[in-house]
Amino acid sequence: MESGLGSVSTPGALPYYVAFSQLLGLTVVAMTGAWLGLYRGGIAWEGTLQFNVHPLCMVIGMIFLQGDALLVYRVFRKEAKRTTKVLHGLLHVFAFIIALVGLVAVFDYHKKKSYADLYSLHSWCGILVFVLYFVQWFVGFSFFLFPGASFSLRSRYRPQHIFFGATIFLLSVGTALLGLKEALLFKLGSQYSTFQPEGVLANVLGLLLACFGVTVLYILAQADWKRPPQAEEQALSMDFKTLTEGDSPSSQ
Amino acid sequence: MESGLGSVSTPGALPYYVAFSQLLGLTVVAMTGAWLGLYRGGIAWEGTLQFNVHPLCMVIGMIFLQGDALLVYRVFRKEAKRTTKVLHGLLHVFAFIIALVGLVAVFDYHKKKSYADLYSLHSWCGILVFVLYFVQWFVGFSFFLFPGASFSLRSRYRPQHIFFGATIFLLSVGTALLGLKEALLFKLGSQYSTFQPEGVLANVLGLLLACFGVTVLYILAQADWKRPPQAEEQALSMDFKTLTEGDSPSSQ
Repeated sequence: MESGLGSVSTPGALPYYVAFSQLLGLTVVAMTGAWLGLYRGGIAWEGTLQFNVHPLCMVIGMIFLQGDALLVYRVFRKEAKRTTKVLHGLLHVFAFIIALVGLVAVFDYHKKKSYADLYSLHSWCGILVFVLYFVQWFVGFSFFLFPGASFSLRSRYRPQHIFFGATIFLLSVGTALLGLKEALLFKLGSQYSTFQPEGVLANVLGLLLACFGVTVLYILAQADWKRPPQAEEQALSMDFKTLTEGDSPSSQ
Repeated sequence: MESGLGSVSTPGALPYYVAFSQLLGLTVVAMTGAWLGLYRGGIAWEGTLQFNVHPLCMVIGMIFLQGDALLVYRVFRKEAKRTTKVLHGLLHVFAFIIALVGLVAVFDYHKKKSYADLYSLHSWCGILVFVLYFVQWFVGFSFFLFPGASFSLRSRYRPQHIFFGATIFLLSVGTALLGLKEALLFKLGSQYSTFQPEGVLANVLGLLLACFGVTVLYILAQADWKRPPQAEEQALSMDFKTLTEGDSPSSQ
C-alpha cells in the first residue's frame, strides 16, 4: 500500500477537477443563499427567519468546508506534511463551529415555536452524522496531531480515518438532501407537483449537492492523485519504522 | 496498483462483514415489506396499492441486489474469473428488471390517478440514477463480457467502472431515503412530529438503509479484501500484456 518515493509534481488533470469541485461547492452555497433569500425571506437570528440560519450554516460547514478539508492533501502537495495536517484539522474545526451555529439556530427556533425536536429521519441522520464528525475529528487529532501515538498505530488507524472521513462527508450530503426535501414538502405540499419555481430551484440545488459529493469522492478515489511522501518524510518514516518495529510501548 | 500473485485464502474478518451486510440487506427488505403491509394496506397491481409495488421493488432491486452484485468479487474468490464476472453481470440484470417493474408501477399509478410525473427531487435523482445504472451495465458488458476489448483498454476502464459502480449504488441509497421521506411527509404531514409508529418505523428503516450502504462500501474499500488474481489468470494477463504492449489495434 505504501507508495514509492513519488515526485512532488502535480498530476495534469487534478487542478481542473479541484477547480470544478470549488465551482460546484461555491455554486451550492450561493444557491442555498439565493433560495433562502428569494423564497424564504432571508436570514436573521430573530423570529421565523432564524430557521433559515440552519440550512445555510450546514451547507457551508458540513458540505463545502468539510469537502474542502478532505481535499487538502490533494491540493497542498509540496508543503510540509505537518502544515497540511494542521490545515486539514483547522478546516474541520471551522466546519464544525459553523455547523454548530446552524444546529443551535434550529433547536432555538423549535424551542421558541414549541415544535418537537428530533422526530424526522433528517434530524436522526443529522445528529448521528454530527456526533460521528466530532468523534472522527477528536480521534484523528489524538492520533495524528497530538504527539504520542506510535508510527505503527498511526499506520494502522490511517485507512480507517480516511474511510470514515469520506463516509461521514457522504452521509452529510445525504442528510442535506433529506433536509432540503423536508423544507420543500412542508412548505409547498401538493403544490410541489405543479413545478413551482422554488421546487425546481431546490431540485437543481439537490442535484448540485450530490454532484459536489461525487466530485470530491472522485478526486479522493484516484490512487495516482494521492499526496506522495516527500524525500525527508520518507527517510523519517523509515527511521521511525525501524525504531518502532514490533510496536513501541506507547502504542498499546 | 496491480497486486502480486496472492493466495486464494479468504481474509479472516471478511465472512463476518459479508454476513452482517446480508443480515442488514434482508432486514431492510423485510422492514420495507412490513411498513407497506402494516401501514399502507399491502401490495397489489390494481388500485391505490399499485403504488406500494414501487418502494418494495426499488429496495429489492436497486439496494439489496445491486449491493450484492458489487460484493460478488469479494465473496467468490476461488471460482474462475469468468464465472464471477457472469454472476456479477446477471445479478445486475435481475436488479435492473425488478427496478423496472417498480418504475412501471409508479408511472402507471400516476397515470391512472392523473398525478404529475417527475416533479420531485426524489424522482429527478431516481431517473438519473436508473439511466446511469443502465449505461454503466451496458458499458461494463461491452468492455468485460463481450469479446473484443483489449487488455489495456480493460485495465484503463476498470478503475472507472469500479468507482462509478460504487457511486451509483450510493446514489441509489440516497434516492431511496428521499423517497421514504417523501412517502412519510405526504401521508403523515404535521403528525410526523408526534412520533407516530409509522414515522418511527420508517426512520429506523432509513437508518438501516444507510447502514447497508456504508457496510457494502466498507467491504469494497478494504484493499486486502480484493479478489487476488489466480495463478493461471496472472500468467494469462502477463501474456496479454506482452502481446498488447503499446495497445492492440482494436483498442483505438
